[in-house]
Amino acid sequence: MYPELDTPALLIDLGAVRANVAEMAKVAATHGVALRPHVKTHKMPELALMQIEAGARGITCAKLGEAEIMADAGIDDILLAFPIWGEPKVRRLEALRERATVRVSLDSPEVAAGLGRLGLRTGSPVEVLVEVDTGQHRLGRPPGRPTADLVAEIAAIPGVEVVGLLTLAGHAYHARTPAELAEVSRREGADLVATAELCARDGIELREISVGSTPTARHVAGVAGVTEIRPGTYIFNDTAMIRLGVATERSAASRVLATVIARPSPDRVVLDAGTKCLTSDNAGSPGWIRAAGIPWLRMDFLNEEHAVARLDPEHAHDGELPVGTRVQLIPGHACTVTNLFDVACGVEDGRVVTELRVAARGAVR
Amino acid sequence: MYPELDTPALLIDLGAVRANVAEMAKVAATHGVALRPHVKTHKMPELALMQIEAGARGITCAKLGEAEIMADAGIDDILLAFPIWGEPKVRRLEALRERATVRVSLDSPEVAAGLGRLGLRTGSPVEVLVEVDTGQHRLGRPPGRPTADLVAEIAAIPGVEVVGLLTLAGHAYHARTPAELAEVSRREGADLVATAELCARDGIELREISVGSTPTARHVAGVAGVTEIRPGTYIFNDTAMIRLGVATERSAASRVLATVIARPSPDRVVLDAGTKCLTSDNAGSPGWIRAAGIPWLRMDFLNEEHAVARLDPEHAHDGELPVGTRVQLIPGHACTVTNLFDVACGVEDGRVVTELRVAARGAVR
Repeated sequence: MYPELDTPALLIDLGAVRANVAEMAKVAATHGVALRPHVKTHKMPELALMQIEAGARGITCAKLGEAEIMADAGIDDILLAFPIWGEPKVRRLEALRERATVRVSLDSPEVAAGLGRLGLRTGSPVEVLVEVDTGQHRLGRPPGRPTADLVAEIAAIPGVEVVGLLTLAGHAYHARTPAELAEVSRREGADLVATAELCARDGIELREISVGSTPTARHVAGVAGVTEIRPGTYIFNDTAMIRLGVATERSAASRVLATVIARPSPDRVVLDAGTKCLTSDNAGSPGWIRAAGIPWLRMDFLNEEHAVARLDPEHAHDGELPVGTRVQLIPGHACTVTNLFDVACGVEDGRVVTELRVAARGAVR
Repeated sequence: MYPELDTPALLIDLGAVRANVAEMAKVAATHGVALRPHVKTHKMPELALMQIEAGARGITCAKLGEAEIMADAGIDDILLAFPIWGEPKVRRLEALRERATVRVSLDSPEVAAGLGRLGLRTGSPVEVLVEVDTGQHRLGRPPGRPTADLVAEIAAIPGVEVVGLLTLAGHAYHARTPAELAEVSRREGADLVATAELCARDGIELREISVGSTPTARHVAGVAGVTEIRPGTYIFNDTAMIRLGVATERSAASRVLATVIARPSPDRVVLDAGTKCLTSDNAGSPGWIRAAGIPWLRMDFLNEEHAVARLDPEHAHDGELPVGTRVQLIPGHACTVTNLFDVACGVEDGRVVTELRVAARGAVR
């Protein structure tokens, strides 16, 4: 398996990537909503350009550093889904706006005031989306009156233009059943649409309702009034997406190629990839890391450079997976895994066909 | 707080680092054991050289890539505490041995056979330490007869020389009381010493008993027969070490400087550092991430780029920690946090005094 590579290595299955990109583009097209994929998952300009070529309206970034690298590659429609605060970042935002259309999401008058000063100084209002708390309890106020009041307060700040509402139903990742996932998704969209109607009655017309994650995108795209979906993980998928029923082992495009480096007992297999390749995200939930095609190998725990797994009893003998065997591990969370590697290997039909630089790796600011 | 830096940023308190380095050197000197710090924690040649200057015999690395970077900086005594398997890595080990004294730990005849071929080809046996499972159930066989038999089997392989035993009592990280930690540590050393005596009765004299992690080092250094301790985390420490009673907030030298970017409700504080700065290691255990000097701010959860924390009721009002406030977050696991940053900021007395490149960041192979 990939004899040309030493391990551990990050593999990206380009066939699966193309299929995932095409499928989500079709979801958006079918429902008549814009697609604005979050590039935090791959951090690679080549893949962002592939998403745009497949029909995405633009991209979503979490950090200015990601956005700058994507703009370097010619991407000119960017949503910064993160409150931009402080003079150094506002100055970078100013430079970024000279080469791309940029919107920013936020949830406070304090952040809006800083952006407003930029809008006034440049004679071009900063377009913002107000983030709404649809249940994750991260950023934003609850839907309805609390958000409508916040929108009014921010809309009154000179130099900013509130163009819409935005949410991330992050609690959808904890849905226990498909029905629960569908319900959380539907509510994610409906709550924002209802809040925008309230804003309209207050005299503020909002033209953008931006929602959706990979788990919720396929459901929420169909909610009337939604204008934009922002899934990210779908391009690679991971075991969390498999567990939620929105991906399969086949559509899990990002894998860590690892080698068995020890077989200390008949049932124990130790691989050369730990949390510095796979992270601790979702650690401990059953099957949070899968060995592709080897369901009888169950991850037990990770240390920094070791993965310790157990063979099911019927496979627990020394002849199974001897030292030197190669295994493809499907991560528990694709987005943070990409961020550990400087370079990934683009593979197709069992061969390495290209090297992909994780250009925005470590772009923390 | 550090107005010259934008956030998030990784701070390394150099005063705390020097004190931590000196204290562990003293532990080793007092007990007459060698100190071989694990550099996985910092991945910085400057700090490895500081450890050696303070009296360390050499260093421990997990990966060849780390060892190569440390050798580039002139470090010439390296333990690779990881089974080195496969021709590409054996060839790199061959090159590394031309510029440094290198030992390798392992737990199988298969890995030893590969190293033995290198030893024969170069006319210089590869010195190996056999890893023992003292309770973590990662690598190695149990102490006593199972390990003694493995030592005999490996010692019979031409081209390798078994120089000692090695263990990591990783289960010590889960100790619930100081007494339990002391007992695990004592047993870590005693089990290896007893096993070496068994090997001696089998006719194989071992000269190295290499043990210890940051939690166990201070206890196990005093066990008669131990020759070497290998703590890593002690140079930076983290909340796991504070919880175990082997560090304090003051000796926690590595911090992520973050900014409050949202105050969506009186009790909720959102900071601009998530798992891409702090990892998910130890996530969810109480106080797994601390805000230095702000005990009433309690971490709730991390997303990729957000930290969501709660203020205790008596501090839960809008005037507390407003948007723009800077906070120093003490990580749950220092070693994996360093590995997320390309550059850290060396600070002293509240000022940035140097830039530290994380030279071996991402050295996964």
